Amino acid sequence: MTFVNLELRDGLATVRLQRGKVNALNEQVVEELSRCFRALEGDPEVRGILLTGSGKFFSFGFDIPEFLGVTREDFTRYLYGFAGLYRELFAHPRPIVAALNGHTVAGGFMLASACDVRVMVKENARIGLNEIGFGSSLFAGSLELLRFWVGDRRAQQIAYGGALYTADEALALGLVDAITEGTALLDEARSRLSELAARSQVAFGSIKRQLRQHVLDEMQRREDESIREFAEIWYSKETRAQLEKITIRP
Amino acid sequence: MTFVNLELRDGLATVRLQRGKVNALNEQVVEELSRCFRALEGDPEVRGILLTGSGKFFSFGFDIPEFLGVTREDFTRYLYGFAGLYRELFAHPRPIVAALNGHTVAGGFMLASACDVRVMVKENARIGLNEIGFGSSLFAGSLELLRFWVGDRRAQQIAYGGALYTADEALALGLVDAITEGTALLDEARSRLSELAARSQVAFGSIKRQLRQHVLDEMQRREDESIREFAEIWYSKETRAQLEKITIRP
Amino acid sequence: MTFVNLELRDGLATVRLQRGKVNALNEQVVEELSRCFRALEGDPEVRGILLTGSGKFFSFGFDIPEFLGVTREDFTRYLYGFAGLYRELFAHPRPIVAALNGHTVAGGFMLASACDVRVMVKENARIGLNEIGFGSSLFAGSLELLRFWVGDRRAQQIAYGGALYTADEALALGLVDAITEGTALLDEARSRLSELAARSQVAFGSIKRQLRQHVLDEMQRREDESIREFAEIWYSKETRAQLEKITIRP
Repeated sequence: MTFVNLELRDGLATVRLQRGKVNALNEQVVEELSRCFRALEGDPEVRGILLTGSGKFFSFGFDIPEFLGVTREDFTRYLYGFAGLYRELFAHPRPIVAALNGHTVAGGFMLASACDVRVMVKENARIGLNEIGFGSSLFAGSLELLRFWVGDRRAQQIAYGGALYTADEALALGLVDAITEGTALLDEARSRLSELAARSQVAFGSIKRQLRQHVLDEMQRREDESIREFAEIWYSKETRAQLEKITIRP
Repeated sequence: MTFVNLELRDGLATVRLQRGKVNALNEQVVEELSRCFRALEGDPEVRGILLTGSGKFFSFGFDIPEFLGVTREDFTRYLYGFAGLYRELFAHPRPIVAALNGHTVAGGFMLASACDVRVMVKENARIGLNEIGFGSSLFAGSLELLRFWVGDRRAQQIAYGGALYTADEALALGLVDAITEGTALLDEARSRLSELAARSQVAFGSIKRQLRQHVLDEMQRREDESIREFAEIWYSKETRAQLEKITIRP
Repeated sequence: MTFVNLELRDGLATVRLQRGKVNALNEQVVEELSRCFRALEGDPEVRGILLTGSGKFFSFGFDIPEFLGVTREDFTRYLYGFAGLYRELFAHPRPIVAALNGHTVAGGFMLASACDVRVMVKENARIGLNEIGFGSSLFAGSLELLRFWVGDRRAQQIAYGGALYTADEALALGLVDAITEGTALLDEARSRLSELAARSQVAFGSIKRQLRQHVLDEMQRREDESIREFAEIWYSKETRAQLEKITIRP
């Protein structure tokens, strides 16, 4: 794997995104993550997974400059793959804790919100779904994940507002479960993961599925249509003009 | 329009209820509001809508004394029209902010809860669903709207209790999003509306639909049956006796 | 009835569990409770029901030592009956207030969470779903009840954690609606019940059904499969070993 680093220790896996300075997501990153999480699901030794980023970003979200060069058909195929990834994460039988080491934006937030628990660094990091700010819609599934954690009312506030929140704000909103100093991040995330990983694996997986099946059902009902609508808006003249202003500093 | 006043300024529409002292709802008011909101939906110049009342009331709810004189068939037809109105408001593609200038009761609360945001005056105004207090049921759809804003547990507390809450209480419960002095009400509501209206119209409409589709689906499944049950209870001897005690002071 | 005591006074029924020191649930208790609540539903004089326990327990939950001696088929039949009981309680047309006089654990908590209101003693009592701690899953329906009261995020926290909470913690989480000194428990519970019982019976029943139908629908969709999975896990070697360590002190 080029953009995903995997480490195994004492039955716990650490999956680390490492692609450039901002860990922007593209088709290859999504494929590598999907393959990685499937392999971990098939490995009976793995009792829990920690998902983190590198540098100042957990993930910037989609690699918008790169996607400006692809056809709508290719982009739509990518979107189905990406939505498939967050569904797989959300339905994964093992506990997954996201250690948010830095900015967690848009598509990056969607991956984080598909985990069981989120721990976020206190300093210099923002988190949110800022799509509306550049004229983009959101997938049905990503909003279902948001509703799962914060309820309908706050989901509207977050999706309409498009704000990027500080760690304190995110904790108060319920977007993350704990905040820590950066130096303590991995310890805190591992400690929470160990607790879940110590449970009966079968009971944990069953309870997790029961808690989440209604979300997966709703995703199945509405995701495909919402992805087509998302792509249509993304390729509209108005949104295109805003996307072209977005740069990822090297 | 007789009971609904419409003003347009800078792309923002103000729809004002004005029927007697309490803006009680009857078939004509519902038809005028429906026609008005449909026309605004079809007008590409309109980027947002402010819904407010006049005098000491946003709305008292149904014009109970008037409805005592109509047949169950006519009343049921009115109920379908009324439920259709709050569904249209809830599904409206543009942002709608309710400026609650005074008491917001029963059917009046249902209209307010179908908007995107509610701002309420601090002084001398109460808000709530008081139906249970006079032996009336509630429609499935109106309870879905309530659940959307406050969740299941508080929805039960509010619907079982039948209380009319002060602005402070309503803010704490999540029934309204902001409270202001009466003199600042329209400015605050317009400021919140302008913010939403400045978003990409297409992205806003798409995100709004994604956030709300599950509510509209549930309404479709259960609304009709609940309206027939509502009418049956409304025309029962026990409830009738209580409705006859309700007066609207001229 | 052997394990269920019923008293009627002024239109209010008190149903008291009394089986040994911990009011553990078995097939006979479930049948007696089912019969009792159905009889109360059919009695037009009964306007409300108080459900309570005796001694230091509301209920310990399933009588695990007893169930270790039954076949998987018999246990599965018991599970269907038990899930049917909490569905009947949840869908009961009259108001039901649970007076939690002591520990309220696992299956005991499920019965309590099917009521309209929970009042809990402050002292020496714990409440929660501790199944995951001994390798057991949870039924879909019991998790739907939990979600109804506390939302998805806290439902996960409670079901993954398996903690038994103090009354103060339970109040903060929304697991109970009020906490009192033990001596004031029944008065407080009766006062809350009287308030609900004073409502129009028809309007109350209709609003209750509208508020809860979505939960009952979800139970119907997923309960049976979840019960089969629950039984499979319960009879697994790993879980069996943990169940055998559980004793009920005489």
